[in-house]
Amino acid sequence: LTGARVSVRSFELGSSRIWIGEGAFGASEAWLAEWLEGRSVFVVTTPRVRLLHGGALGPLRQRARRWSVLEVPEGEAAKSVAVATALWERLVGEGVKRDSRLIGFGGGSVGDLGGFVAATILRGIEFSLLPTTLLAQVDASIGGKTAIDLPAAKNSVGAFHSPRFVVSDTAWLATLDPAEARAGWVEAVKKAVAFDRPLFERFQGSAALAQGFDGSLVPLLVDSAAHKIEVVRADPFEGGERRLLNLGHTLGHAIETAAGYGRLRHGECVVYGLLFALQLAEARGLPPADAAAVRDLLARLQPPALPRLDAAELMLLMARDKKALESGLPWVLPCRLGRAELEVVSHSEVEERLPRFLKAPWESASATL
Amino acid sequence: LTGARVSVRSFELGSSRIWIGEGAFGASEAWLAEWLEGRSVFVVTTPRVRLLHGGALGPLRQRARRWSVLEVPEGEAAKSVAVATALWERLVGEGVKRDSRLIGFGGGSVGDLGGFVAATILRGIEFSLLPTTLLAQVDASIGGKTAIDLPAAKNSVGAFHSPRFVVSDTAWLATLDPAEARAGWVEAVKKAVAFDRPLFERFQGSAALAQGFDGSLVPLLVDSAAHKIEVVRADPFEGGERRLLNLGHTLGHAIETAAGYGRLRHGECVVYGLLFALQLAEARGLPPADAAAVRDLLARLQPPALPRLDAAELMLLMARDKKALESGLPWVLPCRLGRAELEVVSHSEVEERLPRFLKAPWESASATL
Repeated sequence: LTGARVSVRSFELGSSRIWIGEGAFGASEAWLAEWLEGRSVFVVTTPRVRLLHGGALGPLRQRARRWSVLEVPEGEAAKSVAVATALWERLVGEGVKRDSRLIGFGGGSVGDLGGFVAATILRGIEFSLLPTTLLAQVDASIGGKTAIDLPAAKNSVGAFHSPRFVVSDTAWLATLDPAEARAGWVEAVKKAVAFDRPLFERFQGSAALAQGFDGSLVPLLVDSAAHKIEVVRADPFEGGERRLLNLGHTLGHAIETAAGYGRLRHGECVVYGLLFALQLAEARGLPPADAAAVRDLLARLQPPALPRLDAAELMLLMARDKKALESGLPWVLPCRLGRAELEVVSHSEVEERLPRFLKAPWESASATL
Repeated sequence: LTGARVSVRSFELGSSRIWIGEGAFGASEAWLAEWLEGRSVFVVTTPRVRLLHGGALGPLRQRARRWSVLEVPEGEAAKSVAVATALWERLVGEGVKRDSRLIGFGGGSVGDLGGFVAATILRGIEFSLLPTTLLAQVDASIGGKTAIDLPAAKNSVGAFHSPRFVVSDTAWLATLDPAEARAGWVEAVKKAVAFDRPLFERFQGSAALAQGFDGSLVPLLVDSAAHKIEVVRADPFEGGERRLLNLGHTLGHAIETAAGYGRLRHGECVVYGLLFALQLAEARGLPPADAAAVRDLLARLQPPALPRLDAAELMLLMARDKKALESGLPWVLPCRLGRAELEVVSHSEVEERLPRFLKAPWESASATL
């Protein structure tokens, strides 16, 4: 064992095997090589990731029969019907087979898009994810959700399709923009708020968080990912507890769509979604001290200010939320730090609170009423 | 029980419930009504089917909270990325929810497209099929395959997504063009050739087949569908025996793509795919009398003459076959009437036989060598 592998952990989740930590790629390399041995391999990635980390894949490339790198745009722009169609056509044009392999090498968008293409080409081929952003490592790569966007609604077209392998090597995070890393932590903080007070307290104690990512944060990242793995394992198709992971995402997705994909990072939108959920939750009995603690931690993640957004448009976008049922839209609200629940909030209450929230998102509910 | 229901049979297949026969719609109506009660219902259909049979759905419409009819083009033209995208956008625009319902009401193309949209919108909503063509009733609606086409390859994008209900009312076949009905029987004949000699002999004894469809053929249709249900039940994801249902589809799909979607009916292309498989099979020991019996029956289904097609283009299209593996393309070939097997046929043998086959598809292999 080399020293570099000491902080790698591996997990089984359904048909997936997941490695996370410093040196995860080295730990998984023999598995990946066997999986793609002698096959056509399609690597979905971005120009930036290819430039920064592409060299790592050299040894795998030697083992494939054929190796195609398919570059897609950075960020949410990759998750369009047009880009998915271009990938489908490229795969078919290059003779994809049922037992060919696809690798998503990049952030959450590359994983969502690559997974969706793998789920649907020839009615599904195997794929693996090599996430290179903090958000993707701690959250997006875990759980088999794949998706593309429609202009009217984020992630509205997709499928559940589990990656065979997920390799989250934290060494790849060294090149990450600090703002990108901070936005990634939001998903882990959200999970702690919804499920795990001790984890939340570890975040409170991590001064390095404000600078984005450094090696001292690897254990926090691995434990956060491990926690999500447990939630997904217990509820793979989001029938129960897993729905609580949507905390902050009802308004968060609407803000992301309304601001225009790519203007704010996903995690930054979730900050504001969380802040709004705190206001709704305080009105239902969330202790003010708990709400204040969450606000303090989110403030340390330094999201950019909320752009000017139209409340009516956000209401319309929330009505299209994937979680909505015919009976109404269930919100995930914390009832105390470390515990969230699903609650139906009336349309009129949301409509009444939203305009003021958009002007003063960091206020507590008591200040707003 | 009314007389009209006497020839309806119902089946369970995984999470699907299937009714087939004269009066199937009446037999299933209470189940469908309960399934869509109080929900938003999206009916994917064609203008022709809506005009001919749309009235039947009136009582169901009363039970829905909201009822949207989404018309798509007739035939294979519906199965494009563009039409799927228009449906996704329409569903989102009309506020589709996770527990909304989709109904595919029409032939095989409507079912393939509607099922794919249901499989992928919001990562999957429930759908049901009401097949109105013989092909869809006897074959396409059974087994959870959904798909759209790329210009380069038919059914190349899709998913497995099982309908909740399949209601194949043979009363809807009364308005079917006889050529359309004959093309539908091809899939049932194919199944008999690959699996079931007694069923094949019942087809041989059915004089009405040449006229397309009449009530005397209902038992043959129901038993053919029942047989496919058994095959799918034993092998839902096409890992084993179900692959034998692809008999005639390797060259058949290539002809369909090369001729241009819609120029020949799917079943008509499968006739030629079957004829070519017979030639390959005869060269491997299929008894000439068995091959002749299959040719005689196919001739009674009166497919139009094969258009002029380029052998090199067909070779290229076959290389994109979904069944192809990295190790080669397995062909389904009958070894005797009622039994087929997977065999790897060399590229060079196919390439050598194909030009002559395209000129004289009804010849036996002995005549061609």
